[in-house]
Amino acid sequence: MTQSNKDIDALIEMMAKLPGLGPRSARRAVLHMIKKRSLLMMPLADTLQTVAATARECLNCGNIGTTDICDICESEKRATGEICVVEDVADLWAMERGQVFKGRYHVLGGTLSALDAIGPDELRIPKLLDRVTSEGVTEVILALNATIDGQTTAHYIADQLEARQIAVTSLAQGVPIGGELDYLDDGTISAALKARKAI
Amino acid sequence: MTQSNKDIDALIEMMAKLPGLGPRSARRAVLHMIKKRSLLMMPLADTLQTVAATARECLNCGNIGTTDICDICESEKRATGEICVVEDVADLWAMERGQVFKGRYHVLGGTLSALDAIGPDELRIPKLLDRVTSEGVTEVILALNATIDGQTTAHYIADQLEARQIAVTSLAQGVPIGGELDYLDDGTISAALKARKAI
Ligand SMILES: [Zn+2]
Ligand SMILES: [Zn+2]
Repeated sequence: MTQSNKDIDALIEMMAKLPGLGPRSARRAVLHMIKKRSLLMMPLADTLQTVAATARECLNCGNIGTTDICDICESEKRATGEICVVEDVADLWAMERGQVFKGRYHVLGGTLSALDAIGPDELRIPKLLDRVTSEGVTEVILALNATIDGQTTAHYIADQLEARQIAVTSLAQGVPIGGELDYLDDGTISAALKARKAI
Repeated sequence: MTQSNKDIDALIEMMAKLPGLGPRSARRAVLHMIKKRSLLMMPLADTLQTVAATARECLNCGNIGTTDICDICESEKRATGEICVVEDVADLWAMERGQVFKGRYHVLGGTLSALDAIGPDELRIPKLLDRVTSEGVTEVILALNATIDGQTTAHYIADQLEARQIAVTSLAQGVPIGGELDYLDDGTISAALKARKAI
């Protein structure tokens, strides 16, 4: 593939499988790492070994961590009675970067999809219903993507929770902070208009 | 940064330093690796360790390999008396993918640059002149980038080799195979026109 060194070729081939990288950017990344061997490549190799050996899904919420129960589920500070339901771990990370939500999470691992034959049992929905009882939850916030499958899933979960004496909410839809109207899709604009507030 | 797991955060931070990746694509890459732990993450960690421990510049030509003298310099098959001079290892790899050149390489490690105070001794130019004698070279092919610094460097090397009884050549300039004229810069088109051939 490059110059007949099999380890370097294998490294490039594996790097090229990462999302966002292709053969060309994988080659550039590998050359960059080799140039920064002690500052970047060696620490990266060590950390990758550590994470590869220890990363696992939290048995309670589906978050990724290095222990059976993740730090968020372990933390007493986050036992607020609020659970934020997300599709995947990337969404959980996005919520955490917002630094506003102080409760716990529940990672579904996808959305319901008739097309892909994904029903409630393929997701972590039964576990969510268990947790609502066992953790004394008072509010479930559905932070699912504003896609058809995401919204179908949100409605299904809301239905399941209807009989319980808890609040079921979802994230507000509207114009992103700093968002320019001209760049937004029509659905966002009409949702923001319907949800307009007095100022 | 993400969700309070320090190893995963450190891994994302290091991945985000690779060229072509940023924080967002680094997060996606790490989640992808964790999902493909045994198929991708573990082999990648192992190969990264191996390359980090063994990668080095060839003492003869500057190519990157895992031995003091690289496979190309070691190979008797490539003792053709031709040396192809390139700016960096990425260019050597690009030439090898072409699968046409059968000689050896010399990686300069950059170009001459008055602005950046890079003179001949900062590059591998003295070593190139040594090799021309010691390896009985009959042709030096200057495969430098078609930039001002690349062409300045090519002329400097050609001057140094002038007194010797060898051919000094450079890659042909013209329209890339499959290239559409409409997408080429003017310099390429005029160079291709000047170098036009009877068909
Ligand atoms: Zn958890
Ligand atoms: Zn070499």
